[in-house]
Amino acid sequence: MGTALGIDFGGTSIKSGLVRDGAVLFHGNPIETQACRGREEIIDALVALVGQVGEHGEEIAAIGIGLPGLVDSVGGVVHELTNVPGFDEVPLRAILHERTGLPVTIENDAKAMAYGEWKFGAARDGRHVVCVTLGTGVGGALILDGRLHRGAQLGAGEIGHLSIDYRGKPGPFGNFGCLEEYVGNVQIAERAVRRYGEAGTARTVEECSPLDLQKAALAGDTVAWKLWEDLGTELGAALASVVWVINPDTIVIGGGVAKAGELIFEPVRRTIRARTSEIINRDLRVVPAALGNDAGIIGSATLALEAAGR
Amino acid sequence: MGTALGIDFGGTSIKSGLVRDGAVLFHGNPIETQACRGREEIIDALVALVGQVGEHGEEIAAIGIGLPGLVDSVGGVVHELTNVPGFDEVPLRAILHERTGLPVTIENDAKAMAYGEWKFGAARDGRHVVCVTLGTGVGGALILDGRLHRGAQLGAGEIGHLSIDYRGKPGPFGNFGCLEEYVGNVQIAERAVRRYGEAGTARTVEECSPLDLQKAALAGDTVAWKLWEDLGTELGAALASVVWVINPDTIVIGGGVAKAGELIFEPVRRTIRARTSEIINRDLRVVPAALGNDAGIIGSATLALEAAGR
Repeated sequence: MGTALGIDFGGTSIKSGLVRDGAVLFHGNPIETQACRGREEIIDALVALVGQVGEHGEEIAAIGIGLPGLVDSVGGVVHELTNVPGFDEVPLRAILHERTGLPVTIENDAKAMAYGEWKFGAARDGRHVVCVTLGTGVGGALILDGRLHRGAQLGAGEIGHLSIDYRGKPGPFGNFGCLEEYVGNVQIAERAVRRYGEAGTARTVEECSPLDLQKAALAGDTVAWKLWEDLGTELGAALASVVWVINPDTIVIGGGVAKAGELIFEPVRRTIRARTSEIINRDLRVVPAALGNDAGIIGSATLALEAAGR
Repeated sequence: MGTALGIDFGGTSIKSGLVRDGAVLFHGNPIETQACRGREEIIDALVALVGQVGEHGEEIAAIGIGLPGLVDSVGGVVHELTNVPGFDEVPLRAILHERTGLPVTIENDAKAMAYGEWKFGAARDGRHVVCVTLGTGVGGALILDGRLHRGAQLGAGEIGHLSIDYRGKPGPFGNFGCLEEYVGNVQIAERAVRRYGEAGTARTVEECSPLDLQKAALAGDTVAWKLWEDLGTELGAALASVVWVINPDTIVIGGGVAKAGELIFEPVRRTIRARTSEIINRDLRVVPAALGNDAGIIGSATLALEAAGR
């Protein structure tokens, strides 16, 4: 199989690790994305990672990078990068190949994470897999018939933009009632503040992170409890539609919100079951992501090794 | 390629034809489904079709059948047939093979139609294709990465059960706000009757077929015009969600309602464009089905020829 450097390029930090057989042998030092001034510093930092993990003496066969935004994995070009201005239309694959001499694979971050979870994580036994990542953005990716489904413009899997109410609140790209407008981190915090206010309790957005709301619900706070129930219903309703269209065998849910465990998984599973036919939900597994923060690193590295024929 | 008998098994009538190179050489006599008393008479009628089309002297290499309902195309079993009671758990492939000596392929009817449109009809140039059929039921099927996508329980493509309003009207299987509850033929007629009533005009359901409403709208009837606009928005909103998740290059819309042409296609295209990002809708084609009533016959026959290695 060989060993590859996997890089999970996030808007906040760039995480990396040397990966073999789906396991991280050791991590590279995290890089603060916003500390890099512009495109050249980011590229220098990525190249420096190769030298850094190379010091451990392992041969690096390839580099795989997962990036948030519109990534042309076939042409090797990053069209645009979420939260990183100025990183548009960058032929990242060619640049890094020239600087390092190694084969490079680039992919959308949600697709890389899904690939990691499918090959080595929570969806290991799946053939038709839907992955959702819950964070500031709500992303997703599909493995269909044992292959990563990228779609016509390589843009498939955007479950956060699926609408659950066609007359709902407008979201980005002109869609109404998108899932992200309900279950994105920012929206969750805003809804919590509003509901606490209605219940006569003043809370700030900063006091309403998913973790805060999880602790509150588990401590018996009814506002938080009801909010998790609603979040689970909304996410479950969106996933029920995906189940009707895709008929997956496995749904993997990852990201910060998914760490709330049964607070969210129970209503999600219940809603999917209630809104789909027994024959298509009977053997459906709805499970939390298993690789945690390493999913993107492992998925990117694995895609790179496969592309390099290793 | 060879020649196959394609059979499109409908709740009202069973249509058939001898197919070569994606064209129907001649049709079999239509059979009234409800005139057949029970399972044995249906099977006898299907077997009789082989003799009937065989009289033309063409060699028949295989039989392909598309059926409405839950069809196990891999195991060759019809689990249940929409609108045909008593036709449950029928190992139709084995039965017809034994009676005719020919290789038999069975498939869900929407998938067979989609396959026909993809191989020889409106989606001929597509690689990622979404097909929707609008009738009493709203069905669908997906061709992804150049292959028919069946899903884990072979139940994929049920776009009629996708919800456009998670708090909407309950539909079959417990889902709320399913597309079919908006744009199914029965629902369209009921909505038209209600809206005409509100406008002070008495109409019966029988006077509100898709064709009646098409003629009315084209004659300047504002109730009918507004209804088509709403139907297009609802269908377009559902398809926008499908576009975000699947990222297709082609959407084919067929069935009775699709015959209304631009009355429905214009608002559908406008809504998809307004609710998706430019990069994923720029090259998207949204087109009417091209094979008409022969789509299921041609698709079933083609699937049968391919399965027989012809």
